[in-house]
Amino acid sequence: MIYDLIIIGMGPGGYEATLTALRKGLNIAIVEKNKLGGNCLNRACIPTKYFRTGAHLIEKLDTLKNYGINIKGNPEINYAQAWENKEKSIGFLRRSLENLLKSKKVPVYKGIGKIIDKNKVEIEKEDGTKEVIEGKYILISTGSKPSSVGNIVPDGEYVITTEDYMDKLKELPESILVVGGGVAGCELSYIMNKYGTKVYIVELMDRLLPSPIIAEEVSRYLLRKFKKLGIETFFSTTLKEYKVKNGKVEAVLSNGETLNVDKILLSVGRKPNSNIDTIGIEKDQKGFIKVNQYLQTNFENIYAVGDVINSPMLAHIAQYEAKIVLHNILNEDKKSPDYSLTPWSILTAYEVAHVGLNENQAKEKGIETITGYYPYTYNEKAVDESEAEGFVRLIFEKDSKKIIGGYVVGIGASEIIHEISLMIKAGFTAKEVHEYIYFHPSLSEIFAYASYDVAVGKLF
Amino acid sequence: MIYDLIIIGMGPGGYEATLTALRKGLNIAIVEKNKLGGNCLNRACIPTKYFRTGAHLIEKLDTLKNYGINIKGNPEINYAQAWENKEKSIGFLRRSLENLLKSKKVPVYKGIGKIIDKNKVEIEKEDGTKEVIEGKYILISTGSKPSSVGNIVPDGEYVITTEDYMDKLKELPESILVVGGGVAGCELSYIMNKYGTKVYIVELMDRLLPSPIIAEEVSRYLLRKFKKLGIETFFSTTLKEYKVKNGKVEAVLSNGETLNVDKILLSVGRKPNSNIDTIGIEKDQKGFIKVNQYLQTNFENIYAVGDVINSPMLAHIAQYEAKIVLHNILNEDKKSPDYSLTPWSILTAYEVAHVGLNENQAKEKGIETITGYYPYTYNEKAVDESEAEGFVRLIFEKDSKKIIGGYVVGIGASEIIHEISLMIKAGFTAKEVHEYIYFHPSLSEIFAYASYDVAVGKLF
Repeated sequence: MIYDLIIIGMGPGGYEATLTALRKGLNIAIVEKNKLGGNCLNRACIPTKYFRTGAHLIEKLDTLKNYGINIKGNPEINYAQAWENKEKSIGFLRRSLENLLKSKKVPVYKGIGKIIDKNKVEIEKEDGTKEVIEGKYILISTGSKPSSVGNIVPDGEYVITTEDYMDKLKELPESILVVGGGVAGCELSYIMNKYGTKVYIVELMDRLLPSPIIAEEVSRYLLRKFKKLGIETFFSTTLKEYKVKNGKVEAVLSNGETLNVDKILLSVGRKPNSNIDTIGIEKDQKGFIKVNQYLQTNFENIYAVGDVINSPMLAHIAQYEAKIVLHNILNEDKKSPDYSLTPWSILTAYEVAHVGLNENQAKEKGIETITGYYPYTYNEKAVDESEAEGFVRLIFEKDSKKIIGGYVVGIGASEIIHEISLMIKAGFTAKEVHEYIYFHPSLSEIFAYASYDVAVGKLF
Repeated sequence: MIYDLIIIGMGPGGYEATLTALRKGLNIAIVEKNKLGGNCLNRACIPTKYFRTGAHLIEKLDTLKNYGINIKGNPEINYAQAWENKEKSIGFLRRSLENLLKSKKVPVYKGIGKIIDKNKVEIEKEDGTKEVIEGKYILISTGSKPSSVGNIVPDGEYVITTEDYMDKLKELPESILVVGGGVAGCELSYIMNKYGTKVYIVELMDRLLPSPIIAEEVSRYLLRKFKKLGIETFFSTTLKEYKVKNGKVEAVLSNGETLNVDKILLSVGRKPNSNIDTIGIEKDQKGFIKVNQYLQTNFENIYAVGDVINSPMLAHIAQYEAKIVLHNILNEDKKSPDYSLTPWSILTAYEVAHVGLNENQAKEKGIETITGYYPYTYNEKAVDESEAEGFVRLIFEKDSKKIIGGYVVGIGASEIIHEISLMIKAGFTAKEVHEYIYFHPSLSEIFAYASYDVAVGKLF
């Protein structure tokens, strides 16, 4: 039989494509070499968020007494126990996915898929046998894998990748050097810190978190917290060399300092899994599969989404693109993705979230801005929850006072960021942001205060 | 001197009016007989949310082990300690308000204000002296006080109001009968339950929470949880009579049952503080001050907002109305409030939130609907946080498939409800709700799933 659609890679992109395809009655087949759910479910977003919940709860133990909850002595912190429970949670979610596929009788070909003809995928199975399946359309959603850098070679033991971290590291080391202070580096550093590991971060740039998308003031605010937590950072510095000695790693930094740690965690970004075909699907210099505005490769029936193409490497972008691909397969009038309202969220010592344009991004586009700011200090809900750290900044176009972006640092950031996104979408002015009805007490009402100066006038 | 604006009552309405007036350079005076911040800050929203945080943390203690956090034995739960810390948090917020007024040199007249002329307010101070001040405009934001019902007479000791609860109840009783299963009744019942009190609720209607604004399925869902928690409920039942005997209350219900409890908590709604003038400001039959579409009383320079008028009795509505009043004072083209997107949120055993129209409300307006549903069970963030109880229902107009309302039960409800509100405001169709980019993993992405059936088609 010829399938309507073959999906290679069952991560967020593949999963979303599946859900829509099934609802539209398409005959689909799935090719997956690893566990269903992809990197996101098994080794990134979901387990990170799981451990981050634990890390944040450990931090919150200090606030229990505010509510008359008195625990005896210090709690015992057992990372291995968290790890086992993380596996259970992920297992529950993966099974719900497996059960869906079973109940809809979707064939899942376990193995490495290779596109050998514009309508044919060859699957190399674990036992070495091969099978070829045929499809009208093919979706490549094969994701990405950790990059390495320079002379640093992951060995799965002393030098580990973020995937090794999630797959294998059931016990945390006493000390670790994290190479790369980007998203994954900051997220895992906070987790390890709260679970008791001494964490060092070495970062080539002069700050934490990706620039320019994460504003400088956010990066500085996070750094202050990292210092308070005892996370040590080295900026504008690289790992020059390292050697394993007596079960420890001796790491020499470019500033001449030597650190003796148990492990090195490499978190220097990811590269696309684009070695996927023998038919000449075009890739760019970095190995990303090239797609046109409709997410088609140079073969018009073969689409690609997610980390394997050069768009923001975020699970929700893969999902968004998958919806567009399904639309484009099913309709004459094709759609293009619009990334302008992509929400970013980083779950580290604070929740950090961004959407739209920050001041620097606006400046680069020649847009003059005026901004509004409000700290969590006086937000009643944040105070009630003993979570009054953080702030909001809203970015408005100077003349029209229309909201064009914003970022949030603090509790709830990864949810309320969508309100900023929706207000941009709806074309709100500062006055409209200010006068909107937000529940009291909520974190969301901070937007009414962060827009006050611009909408109404300054208080001081 | 003649003030530009005299504000009587410094709750959320008065506070918001103050903030805007000061930014607009108005000369204002404040009259307040009690503590700054009003009922909301001192006896309702903010302390309730404070205790609710504690109650929810007590419930979450069971989940700590999921994250490898092992506490020894059972924690000691001390409500009095929570009470003291609640006072500190509220005190901090109240002082920030006091400091603002001081730094802006705003006169605060402590005492009971009475409007004795359309431009004059007489203040009766605690020492019995009187002072009259003059203003061009007057804002009445005097709020409300607890209602009582039938033969039940609050005595501050055995029969207490919700205000007594917050002001005086430093130790919780072993058992309590809550009269009224509305918003305050459900919020306080959950708090007392988690802090160790045996709670009974008697409710005249056949369900919990206000109808029709809170949908029947939400009420049922909450009831199941209350049962699990050991909160006992009596519906379609009233408190027939009670007597105090040996330091306990013997309460006889209309169904013939007798309960022996330590206290009765009366939570049967609130009535306006509208005994405010000698000049004939018009009130309705229930005592609410009558206002026109611009929030003016029958004296055009006297405005009223908040609980004292017949609009939703919510702090954020008072704030919203105050903004409109300031606009109307300062501008020729006057504005009217639009309550259609008022968010409701109830912080009880679940967060419960509502905005727009539910199915019944739509039906009453003759609007045909189609709805979408998704449980928290499979939301990855909720699973990661061990908070996978709850659901979302979205209401769409049947033909256009435009979103017209929705409700959320579960963690984060009081924040993500604003996304539904903003999507209604922006005129989103089910397809637009479904295809919007939500951060993964977030609670917000549940909207993509709750709109899937309507936007794309059913899976089963």
